[in-house]
Amino acid sequence: MKKIIVDSYKEMSELAASILLSEMTKDKRTNISITAGATPKGVYKILTKWYLKYPESFIDTYFYSFDEVEVGSLPGATITDLNESFYKPAKIPRKRINSLTYANYQEYDQLIKEDGGLDIMMLGLGQDGHFCGNMPYGTDLRQFTYKLPIKEEYPWYRALQELFPGQDLPEYFVTMGMRSLMKVKHLILIVNGKAKAEAVKKMLTLDVTNEFPATALLQHPNLTIILDQEAAQIV
Amino acid sequence: MKKIIVDSYKEMSELAASILLSEMTKDKRTNISITAGATPKGVYKILTKWYLKYPESFIDTYFYSFDEVEVGSLPGATITDLNESFYKPAKIPRKRINSLTYANYQEYDQLIKEDGGLDIMMLGLGQDGHFCGNMPYGTDLRQFTYKLPIKEEYPWYRALQELFPGQDLPEYFVTMGMRSLMKVKHLILIVNGKAKAEAVKKMLTLDVTNEFPATALLQHPNLTIILDQEAAQIV
Amino acid sequence: MKKIIVDSYKEMSELAASILLSEMTKDKRTNISITAGATPKGVYKILTKWYLKYPESFIDTYFYSFDEVEVGSLPGATITDLNESFYKPAKIPRKRINSLTYANYQEYDQLIKEDGGLDIMMLGLGQDGHFCGNMPYGTDLRQFTYKLPIKEEYPWYRALQELFPGQDLPEYFVTMGMRSLMKVKHLILIVNGKAKAEAVKKMLTLDVTNEFPATALLQHPNLTIILDQEAAQIV
Amino acid sequence: MKKIIVDSYKEMSELAASILLSEMTKDKRTNISITAGATPKGVYKILTKWYLKYPESFIDTYFYSFDEVEVGSLPGATITDLNESFYKPAKIPRKRINSLTYANYQEYDQLIKEDGGLDIMMLGLGQDGHFCGNMPYGTDLRQFTYKLPIKEEYPWYRALQELFPGQDLPEYFVTMGMRSLMKVKHLILIVNGKAKAEAVKKMLTLDVTNEFPATALLQHPNLTIILDQEAAQIV
Repeated sequence: MKKIIVDSYKEMSELAASILLSEMTKDKRTNISITAGATPKGVYKILTKWYLKYPESFIDTYFYSFDEVEVGSLPGATITDLNESFYKPAKIPRKRINSLTYANYQEYDQLIKEDGGLDIMMLGLGQDGHFCGNMPYGTDLRQFTYKLPIKEEYPWYRALQELFPGQDLPEYFVTMGMRSLMKVKHLILIVNGKAKAEAVKKMLTLDVTNEFPATALLQHPNLTIILDQEAAQIV
Repeated sequence: MKKIIVDSYKEMSELAASILLSEMTKDKRTNISITAGATPKGVYKILTKWYLKYPESFIDTYFYSFDEVEVGSLPGATITDLNESFYKPAKIPRKRINSLTYANYQEYDQLIKEDGGLDIMMLGLGQDGHFCGNMPYGTDLRQFTYKLPIKEEYPWYRALQELFPGQDLPEYFVTMGMRSLMKVKHLILIVNGKAKAEAVKKMLTLDVTNEFPATALLQHPNLTIILDQEAAQIV
Repeated sequence: MKKIIVDSYKEMSELAASILLSEMTKDKRTNISITAGATPKGVYKILTKWYLKYPESFIDTYFYSFDEVEVGSLPGATITDLNESFYKPAKIPRKRINSLTYANYQEYDQLIKEDGGLDIMMLGLGQDGHFCGNMPYGTDLRQFTYKLPIKEEYPWYRALQELFPGQDLPEYFVTMGMRSLMKVKHLILIVNGKAKAEAVKKMLTLDVTNEFPATALLQHPNLTIILDQEAAQIV
Repeated sequence: MKKIIVDSYKEMSELAASILLSEMTKDKRTNISITAGATPKGVYKILTKWYLKYPESFIDTYFYSFDEVEVGSLPGATITDLNESFYKPAKIPRKRINSLTYANYQEYDQLIKEDGGLDIMMLGLGQDGHFCGNMPYGTDLRQFTYKLPIKEEYPWYRALQELFPGQDLPEYFVTMGMRSLMKVKHLILIVNGKAKAEAVKKMLTLDVTNEFPATALLQHPNLTIILDQEAAQIV
């Protein structure tokens, strides 16, 4: 694990964008998995600038989402977020985008294997210790891509419900599991803001536990953690 | 070969710096070979900023120079340039710097092999088609690191002499040869300015010839050429 | 280049088979390109034994042929040979076999790139210095997969004609070119028998020339040459 | 994880030897970690044959032991075993052998990192679920190379004592830990004999637990398990 603590959200975004850009400039197919959410917005702003100016330079890069929740008849929340925050603004062609869904999750690892494996994944850290869709208590760390149950007894159930007001929650998420992530050649974990400082500390110090799933990430052979000062303040 | 044409020297420098930074953030030893000269100064400015702020983040990166000329009792011209333009400003510790010299050139490929091979090399393009110290006419494209003769009959002799006024030129350069470069996992060639436009065109269109050694670079399996608009204007 | 001289055809076959088997046991997709002809028959005998006993162990391995000649209405000569000498006896499923043809040669490098690149290629050496379908005089060493003309003026024309008695020869071969081979992560060249000794010597000592195309192979960054004593007798 | 079940100890040995041989024939430095004990003796017999006949072919291969116990003034048990079963019979030069010791264990991961990382490790499986020196109950799965305590309360204490009759046992083993192993590019686990059948089943089915440390191996991104029929009989 390599831990890099930078001064600001801006530098965190620049460094993570540099790492992704670098993969995209190689003269080979590159398979990249990226995260939805607020943390990566700075990264996507930088990448979008490059994509719009030089679309021909990045035609060998393919994208793969790593989790999904499909509520009622809504489109998947993850793919919707990625479309809005990056794929659409950067005008990534559909054929270079792969989405994990409730329909394909059982074949997803095989698809990725046949495509040559993931070169890089950029992910965030939840305050509750989740990574991808590996939520506290529901996580099974020995899984590849799998169904993770959504149960009322889990502490995050209410917050999830609030994200989808007036909807019936589905019975499960789908997510790449820890064994899928282990096969990614390079993991980049980006974390910013003091609200995440406690989670960073737990990840770096607790034993591996499904109560705080991100504790398992440290086992990855090539993990780069990029933190801003606020997120790193009690490390 | 992947060719990326960007708008400006600034963008060329940003993209090349991103690629080098990316290697440096991996959780492994990274061996990098970089070029002296004017073209990379923008890259080194960016990298120096990161090195000075976060020196602990880059402790697994080792540097290797790829050519040298030692005139009279002067220190080598390449290492002198690299010291001034990057190693000193960025405060790279001596133990992470390897210099090719007249004394060690015969063991240099073996040293690099024992160190695990070069992950990346950033090089420039001479107007006369040279790369590293592989000068027109004197180049032998089947060599690993070797001695390249300096002869009065070569068209670049006079220009070389003018770089070292009042000095007797040595009988040869030392340089990594094309076979050494083939073993580098990723080559980045950066070229800017209209003065290089003709050289870029020749490199991309001529048959492989020691009259314009850079023609051989296209054989490399993972070559990224980053050009600004001026250098690419007749491509 | 690593040169290994073993005592016998049997040992050459064992060592080459070991290298191929090793790739096939990795827990990832493996893309392999292998040669037709007499030299590899010992290798295929060993591999076939493993394939027939443990077919489930090798389901992540995909095959790609590297040259072809299509005469009249005959099926391609290379794929016919590979079918007989390996694919059929080893019961490799069709879906894991990719064949280079006159119809697909222009998309073949792109296909391989999208499939993640070739991990390994095992090739032989022609007495006349050809490798894959890169024949003397007709070879263009700067090509990826390309059409190589078949002309009466070439010294190998008559021998080719004799292989297809009573048939009109086509106007060209298709073959992966040197730049395609450069992108293969590991090349294994197997050569046996005193009839090849002169060719081995030429390959190792001549300058790169399209009169003896195999001279270009030495530029490859990860080339293992396995010779029996007879083939190596004047090295 | 790729699981290959072969008919016999002989085939298990042949396949594992093939994988190691393959790494050794690449034209690059290769770093290999291998196990002491009875299981690999068949592998070492094959490798020794190749080493004695063709020592020049394997000069780029370096060895690293992965655990050690130093009892009283005796030399380390692991290095003694490796010397007898492989290094001495195969005449491996001292300079290409690295031994983990009580004196150097704190610098061992850094040494390996500086040497370019381990390309491959061949290990065995203990009936009690240990791998390397990661013994039941004493194992801490979040460690790199570390000291593992030897306590009378552990169920394996008595058996260990019997291996060193009349000696005072030391207070700890040193061993590469799970995080060190995660960074090895390819793990090969060889297991034979019905006495190991129960252990194989546990490894493949139990949750990750330090009561049966080998359960953690399945998290490795490129693990090849080679079993003979007897070891696989209840899988």
